[in-house]
Amino acid sequence: MTFLGEHSLATPAYQEKVDALIAFLDKTAIARDKKGGTAQVERDAIRQSGLLALWIPKQYGGIGASWAETLTVVRRLAAVDSSLAHVFAFQHLLLASTQLFGQPDQWEPWFEQTAKLNWFWGNALNPLDTRTISQPLADGFVFSGNKSFCSGATDSNRLLVSAIDQTTKKLIIAVLPTEREGINIFQDWDNIGQRQTDSGSIELQNVRVDAHEVLSNPGPLSTPYSALRPLIAQQILTNIYIGIAEGAYQAAKQYTSQSSRAWAASGVDHASQDPYTLGHFGDFWIGLESSRLLAEKAAHLLDDAWSVGDQLTPAHRGEVAIATATAKVASAQVGLDITSRLFDVTGARATTASLGLDRFWRNIRTHSLHDPVDYKRKELGHWALNNEYPSPTFYS
Amino acid sequence: MTFLGEHSLATPAYQEKVDALIAFLDKTAIARDKKGGTAQVERDAIRQSGLLALWIPKQYGGIGASWAETLTVVRRLAAVDSSLAHVFAFQHLLLASTQLFGQPDQWEPWFEQTAKLNWFWGNALNPLDTRTISQPLADGFVFSGNKSFCSGATDSNRLLVSAIDQTTKKLIIAVLPTEREGINIFQDWDNIGQRQTDSGSIELQNVRVDAHEVLSNPGPLSTPYSALRPLIAQQILTNIYIGIAEGAYQAAKQYTSQSSRAWAASGVDHASQDPYTLGHFGDFWIGLESSRLLAEKAAHLLDDAWSVGDQLTPAHRGEVAIATATAKVASAQVGLDITSRLFDVTGARATTASLGLDRFWRNIRTHSLHDPVDYKRKELGHWALNNEYPSPTFYS
Amino acid sequence: MTFLGEHSLATPAYQEKVDALIAFLDKTAIARDKKGGTAQVERDAIRQSGLLALWIPKQYGGIGASWAETLTVVRRLAAVDSSLAHVFAFQHLLLASTQLFGQPDQWEPWFEQTAKLNWFWGNALNPLDTRTISQPLADGFVFSGNKSFCSGATDSNRLLVSAIDQTTKKLIIAVLPTEREGINIFQDWDNIGQRQTDSGSIELQNVRVDAHEVLSNPGPLSTPYSALRPLIAQQILTNIYIGIAEGAYQAAKQYTSQSSRAWAASGVDHASQDPYTLGHFGDFWIGLESSRLLAEKAAHLLDDAWSVGDQLTPAHRGEVAIATATAKVASAQVGLDITSRLFDVTGARATTASLGLDRFWRNIRTHSLHDPVDYKRKELGHWALNNEYPSPTFYS
Amino acid sequence: MTFLGEHSLATPAYQEKVDALIAFLDKTAIARDKKGGTAQVERDAIRQSGLLALWIPKQYGGIGASWAETLTVVRRLAAVDSSLAHVFAFQHLLLASTQLFGQPDQWEPWFEQTAKLNWFWGNALNPLDTRTISQPLADGFVFSGNKSFCSGATDSNRLLVSAIDQTTKKLIIAVLPTEREGINIFQDWDNIGQRQTDSGSIELQNVRVDAHEVLSNPGPLSTPYSALRPLIAQQILTNIYIGIAEGAYQAAKQYTSQSSRAWAASGVDHASQDPYTLGHFGDFWIGLESSRLLAEKAAHLLDDAWSVGDQLTPAHRGEVAIATATAKVASAQVGLDITSRLFDVTGARATTASLGLDRFWRNIRTHSLHDPVDYKRKELGHWALNNEYPSPTFYS
Repeated sequence: MTFLGEHSLATPAYQEKVDALIAFLDKTAIARDKKGGTAQVERDAIRQSGLLALWIPKQYGGIGASWAETLTVVRRLAAVDSSLAHVFAFQHLLLASTQLFGQPDQWEPWFEQTAKLNWFWGNALNPLDTRTISQPLADGFVFSGNKSFCSGATDSNRLLVSAIDQTTKKLIIAVLPTEREGINIFQDWDNIGQRQTDSGSIELQNVRVDAHEVLSNPGPLSTPYSALRPLIAQQILTNIYIGIAEGAYQAAKQYTSQSSRAWAASGVDHASQDPYTLGHFGDFWIGLESSRLLAEKAAHLLDDAWSVGDQLTPAHRGEVAIATATAKVASAQVGLDITSRLFDVTGARATTASLGLDRFWRNIRTHSLHDPVDYKRKELGHWALNNEYPSPTFYS
Repeated sequence: MTFLGEHSLATPAYQEKVDALIAFLDKTAIARDKKGGTAQVERDAIRQSGLLALWIPKQYGGIGASWAETLTVVRRLAAVDSSLAHVFAFQHLLLASTQLFGQPDQWEPWFEQTAKLNWFWGNALNPLDTRTISQPLADGFVFSGNKSFCSGATDSNRLLVSAIDQTTKKLIIAVLPTEREGINIFQDWDNIGQRQTDSGSIELQNVRVDAHEVLSNPGPLSTPYSALRPLIAQQILTNIYIGIAEGAYQAAKQYTSQSSRAWAASGVDHASQDPYTLGHFGDFWIGLESSRLLAEKAAHLLDDAWSVGDQLTPAHRGEVAIATATAKVASAQVGLDITSRLFDVTGARATTASLGLDRFWRNIRTHSLHDPVDYKRKELGHWALNNEYPSPTFYS
Repeated sequence: MTFLGEHSLATPAYQEKVDALIAFLDKTAIARDKKGGTAQVERDAIRQSGLLALWIPKQYGGIGASWAETLTVVRRLAAVDSSLAHVFAFQHLLLASTQLFGQPDQWEPWFEQTAKLNWFWGNALNPLDTRTISQPLADGFVFSGNKSFCSGATDSNRLLVSAIDQTTKKLIIAVLPTEREGINIFQDWDNIGQRQTDSGSIELQNVRVDAHEVLSNPGPLSTPYSALRPLIAQQILTNIYIGIAEGAYQAAKQYTSQSSRAWAASGVDHASQDPYTLGHFGDFWIGLESSRLLAEKAAHLLDDAWSVGDQLTPAHRGEVAIATATAKVASAQVGLDITSRLFDVTGARATTASLGLDRFWRNIRTHSLHDPVDYKRKELGHWALNNEYPSPTFYS
Repeated sequence: MTFLGEHSLATPAYQEKVDALIAFLDKTAIARDKKGGTAQVERDAIRQSGLLALWIPKQYGGIGASWAETLTVVRRLAAVDSSLAHVFAFQHLLLASTQLFGQPDQWEPWFEQTAKLNWFWGNALNPLDTRTISQPLADGFVFSGNKSFCSGATDSNRLLVSAIDQTTKKLIIAVLPTEREGINIFQDWDNIGQRQTDSGSIELQNVRVDAHEVLSNPGPLSTPYSALRPLIAQQILTNIYIGIAEGAYQAAKQYTSQSSRAWAASGVDHASQDPYTLGHFGDFWIGLESSRLLAEKAAHLLDDAWSVGDQLTPAHRGEVAIATATAKVASAQVGLDITSRLFDVTGARATTASLGLDRFWRNIRTHSLHDPVDYKRKELGHWALNNEYPSPTFYS
């Protein structure tokens, strides 16, 4: 009887850890949203759970979950805490990036050490922010400059850092220990949503980068396979949106069942029998189900493409891209709708700050701006009208 | 490379027949929409295709397609001719009804003869029209009265007929040869859409019904299993809506690519590069994909529940009902949207009657009124808010 | 008690004629929609009503209605017959064009003769169709070529015709007697909506145009004042959309009140008490009221700008343009919504072709493609974001 | 040239005071939203502006603004600070209530003293909260019990208080000095929006109420005229919604013009030329204009009905009610849309907490729950379908 809502994956062995982590995050999620900043205690709990190795293949000491499984965990975490779901998800994106952009003698040790030492990876790869410049050395590079939107940099063990080559203007991506000299991480993330993602700025002051730390072979987006990276990123966003929407739906359901009052003019005894309220919940369900199925299709296509490896064709990558974009747009729209409309079913008293029910909207509103939904619609239009797959970029 | 758009079923052996039938229907679909009435030539072509036995199990001489496969054929037919898709689909609903409501010694011969003789089944079961009354005889019944919305009654070989028992007011359902004395079928279907479904009225004048023709054991909706009947009906509607939407999308795509002109203020050379046009097509794609996945999930759950048979639990039936209602509402909304918005991408010249592009909207507008979308939303709301499955009725 | 719905104009003297004309058109509107073609009897009735001179100032023998009053009549006609409302409205647009583009010694006699002889004016000015070419003569021009979308050309007395100057490529606009040698009008308008606007094509075979027939001083769109022409056209479209929406609403109201049946699951005795049905009607009302107020504001601004005359500034013209575009987009959206959704309140039986309730959607769907709604939204965006008025074109 | 956006009222003499107050509130609005609580400094500034007497007729020492004018000031204040706009607006609602429910010898002195002493009125009339009970005394009453949602009670000079008569269960409404013994006002308003309305709870402990303080003749909602009270309340809500939407639009415009970056795939140089961004702004404009016109129509009808006085008929009151409900629903929907969609035009960086751009959504989301939008749609449906005016209640 678990097909609806939960969906079809057989319960994996790591599930207990996930359940425990969700329960732990849930306890303080409302308070931490208000406070913002680094969720140190919760990051430590994630480390201790062992789930930072969720997606790392077993041969490197990880749990070996598929992308579909990993994204399901992301979604479930996001239902209670979409900030920590984000840094948890990006952990796996960053690890995957090293595999897609670099060589096995680079990423194999990183995978192993991450699994062994519970390394947390942080992101300093914002391709739209071109202020960080790379200058060549004999046996490496020096990175200098600032960078914004560096989610999870604080309290991380390794950082994926990008810079623009001073001469070629090409993007250079490297993996650095977060404590590398010259890296300053600012506690300056104070935004309306996703308040504990530590997505603030960092400064690189003449940071030494060794040649073996650079992911240059095959390098970023250089092949259809390496260009799976942005699709993983987009699927992470998608599942966070769905998780937020599911969290909002669950909160709305609980409040409406237990606390809402029937409106005098409704002629019903309890808010849960109100025809308009039921209509809203019907719409919520349709939106959630659509999003879930689209996301699951995209995840399964991703796993399939991942398993192909280097030989992945542009068309095969294109199919994953279309399914990914479809799920992303639908999830963003559904999530924005449910997180705002939930108040129409709960009523006025549910606006008390103590419940923090606005956090769902603030979180998805912030996160859904990662890249414009309109240009995803346009990409899908090129596919639907002109049979063209999206050209790979860091957003497509 | 066929996952997107086409989806995942392996090509079955009957596919060539389906393709040929689609090509044949497509040739005259626009003209026949204008003309309305019985599509005798096309009905004969369906008979000759052997596809009237598509869903009939192989042991009775049929093709043995699953519900998922059968509904996929319905959807593909609906993309070119949603009227004939409807009567084709109801063929299988009516056959299934005899199995769900009756005994093997009743339906086994009907299945066999249908497969052998290419019988076309017609519908005279409209539970909302209570004008036909049944009076008991010693060894049967006499049915008298009128009945509306009798799709496919004209030119049928067998009819599923319902009447209200004069005394008990219960619904009695029987299978009768269409030529049975006293049955008059009127050619009075002239509606704005679905113009060749022959969904007009019939009159029963003292029609003799033998006891063995009555489906009384277990009877209609008497068990969770027999109550799968309305879910099959709803999934047929769903797939017809999706088929219409796909037909509209294909027509819009073809016209926009080949005939639309770029708007002067757009600054692009061809309509296919217009940002707003691309945005619309992106939305069309999202809607179609969502509908397809929801419908496929519902169909697979139906096949699963069908295979359980008599032991089907209310909860298991309830899951199918929820998936079915979800797909139905989404498909109706998406279809109404695409069939109206298609003109925004084609432009004014595509309103020429010779293209008949309004038929998509007229067809889905008519068909989507079978039962109110709002009450399906309400049912889904009861599930989403109150954890209640729909109570089985002929519409739920 | 007439403020709501009817609105605030004091009853003018010509109202009885309008009422009579509406009653006459209403009698046969459904049948004529099916038939299409030229509505000769109804065009004659319009001629005989004297209303072809509705907007012509009294000093030229006309009724002297303001634009606001004229557009209100257009709207009321459109509620019963949006095809004849269109040709009636364009009568006044074409007359106004002669005043805006030409000299008093040109248009004054045309106004007088129109009022006296009940001339019907037809349109052969389609700036997007550049196939008609003008060659200069010593004292005039020769026009040759085809032209599409020539609404009301059939059965007209005067035609506004445009051609492209062979050398300068500039637009030349002339007023010609419809019977001028070389003008062939084709009965080739057969579209899905607006079926009696005679918006087919014409052919000009070496048509002689005298110099005094050409509207070259000040010429088309040459000043802010002459550039009011497209705004009048857009307001006509707007009021036709609103009229169609009002007609659809009235039909939905009548059918739902008198003929719809309460849905079994609704728990109400009559369809008119169904909560979802009431919600739809509430939305209809909001849409209609919004559209009406936007259209009325635009019309009053137009009357105000018209009264300024030659001295009209670009900014003043710009204000009218913004109000006009706002009303146009809103009306198109509201009209498309109501004309499709009306069936959700009436239910399935209202799809009978005898009621012809689909004509509202077919009419507005056709008419709302005159120029793309998306580019009107873009124009409004330029105003709302960048404080820029639309640049005058034949569509802005 | 001020018709668009600003609208048509001639500049009244009090305008400078309004402008100054708006500028003052704007300075600290973002910070005060974060802080919440009583805006003492700003309340004092309102007192000192003299605008608490804005609507009080001149003969009692007030400014004598009409309802249309008063509501325009409310709307303008709401664009920068919807919390203080609310308490400012309710000031006038409460004063009007005394006139509608009481006798001149009651309200005339209150009007005079308010104008003279800059009394701020607070609300303790929540008809849905029935916990406060009234017991009769020989020459008055004793009120006891708690009451929630008492906007503006803190720091007020007079309170409008309601209680349920212990015996008759009828509503008793009285005007009390806020410092009356037994009235305890709690600083417990901490909600997600409208954070400085002080809409917390109060406690009445055996509060003495004199007979002359009770508004019992004609009493609440006793006549069509006295039943204008909820319509004033609803129009206040409407104008606050519009003000919030206008504030959001202005903020979006400023940020997009000055700070947003063009998206790489857009092919434009500046975000202000992006076709999708322009489309959103076009929609914002249409929504704002529609809301404004609906609100202005409702306000003028209210002024008209107010001027009729005691002789107001049910139908005349009904017309105001319909216009009021129409404007309310449209404004709530438009406001929710713009305040959420504004981020789609600004982009991700505008989510910084320092800009506080989420406050618009939080404010309207909170305020639009005052009473359910769905039931207003239903009321409008009863009018549009069944020609029925809403029955007067405190919400209709």
